Amino acid sequence: MSMPITQERLLDERQIERVLIAYCRGLDTMELDALALLFTEDCLVSYGPDAALNSHGRDGLRRDLGRLWRWRRTAHHLSNVEIDFTAADRASVSSAVMAWHERADGGSDLVTATVFGRYEDEFVRTGEGWLIAKRTMYMSGSNSAFKVNLHPLPRRPPPPGWTAPVVERRGP
Amino acid sequence: MSMPITQERLLDERQIERVLIAYCRGLDTMELDALALLFTEDCLVSYGPDAALNSHGRDGLRRDLGRLWRWRRTAHHLSNVEIDFTAADRASVSSAVMAWHERADGGSDLVTATVFGRYEDEFVRTGEGWLIAKRTMYMSGSNSAFKVNLHPLPRRPPPPGWTAPVVERRGP
Amino acid sequence: MSMPITQERLLDERQIERVLIAYCRGLDTMELDALALLFTEDCLVSYGPDAALNSHGRDGLRRDLGRLWRWRRTAHHLSNVEIDFTAADRASVSSAVMAWHERADGGSDLVTATVFGRYEDEFVRTGEGWLIAKRTMYMSGSNSAFKVNLHPLPRRPPPPGWTAPVVERRGP
Repeated sequence: MSMPITQERLLDERQIERVLIAYCRGLDTMELDALALLFTEDCLVSYGPDAALNSHGRDGLRRDLGRLWRWRRTAHHLSNVEIDFTAADRASVSSAVMAWHERADGGSDLVTATVFGRYEDEFVRTGEGWLIAKRTMYMSGSNSAFKVNLHPLPRRPPPPGWTAPVVERRGP
Repeated sequence: MSMPITQERLLDERQIERVLIAYCRGLDTMELDALALLFTEDCLVSYGPDAALNSHGRDGLRRDLGRLWRWRRTAHHLSNVEIDFTAADRASVSSAVMAWHERADGGSDLVTATVFGRYEDEFVRTGEGWLIAKRTMYMSGSNSAFKVNLHPLPRRPPPPGWTAPVVERRGP
Repeated sequence: MSMPITQERLLDERQIERVLIAYCRGLDTMELDALALLFTEDCLVSYGPDAALNSHGRDGLRRDLGRLWRWRRTAHHLSNVEIDFTAADRASVSSAVMAWHERADGGSDLVTATVFGRYEDEFVRTGEGWLIAKRTMYMSGSNSAFKVNLHPLPRRPPPPGWTAPVVERRGP
């Protein structure tokens, strides 16, 4: 159940969006101390079903996200932010991320991995501002070089009997 | 002729942006019933010059967008939103979309198609909120695996006599 | 030192974001006369250390950005906007750009160059609205086809003794 949006809420939304963006910046620069402060002390963060992809608390998250150092460079581009306030100090927030990663032995396009992901977050307003209390990452897709077992984004199948129309250009 | 922006208009802009994002979400999850409700009952939607790429009305659009099921997975990332109010209840809206598609026989990067597109929309405020009355999609570019005949984005050519400078790094 | 954000500031932020987006649109359509008007008359724009990548003033920038015509098509997708007001009429602004370029001899994915970049801008409010006085572009990464010597984005190295965990899926 989400609450109606007001002009005052736009300031809350702006602060929440800044947290989402600061997370992406923190990953690309690997400033993990600052990144961990975007989450509550007792946060739960799940990128996939495997134990190694589930982090608990700021300290655990800061340690676990060190795994990004196995890439030489990364770029996290955030978009599609949807914020729904569920109480005065709580919000459910969905966003999309295009995450590009280059392997440490890079130099060829074959060793870059791209993920088209979605963050589903629970935000809470605290004395330190809006923070992420719970994050679950889903994956719409990825290129073939990305092998991490992220949660898949559910997708509705076609109805029975559906057949594909021809919309591609025929060619020479 | 666009109208000056005010603080009240920021709430309208937020609602319009949510419609743009919900469209992307609807395509990635293929929840086409919900997606069709983002458009007016008599909407006109054109992705390209071919008849198969032009949809009329909510029912037509919902049926025609079933063509996305020929892909196994997709990801639509929205950005570059520009909203210009042309009347109290009307707005011209431009946005950019990075649309990634994986073929149903996927598993290789050779069968993913990426489009760099632009939506040019006419929004109207209705009793159901801001809805898309008219959408035209243009394409800035795409990778070679994408073969759908979308409207090309116009681009100004260089002036007569222009020659390319050298800005690439030389080197081994 | 950044200033607290208020509801009035949200209108400034919206205007600044529109300038960032109009720049991207101007590059993709190569409407360089309009693009130059997004900058102050005495602007400084640096994309990399080489002299050819540093532009001075509107006229210089308009001329130098003609180099984009060596590509057949481009797409600039903007995201991750962070605005910090440093005075009543000044703001430091960071944003991310996914910039796709197709070579004039294109037709193959091998000749498309993608950059994952970051703009660090100084904006000033003028009689013509908010304009970019100083822009420095950094690069988080790029695919192998991009050879321009952009400023690299700094990234913190792993602590001494760090070893990479195994998070990739094993499998056939």
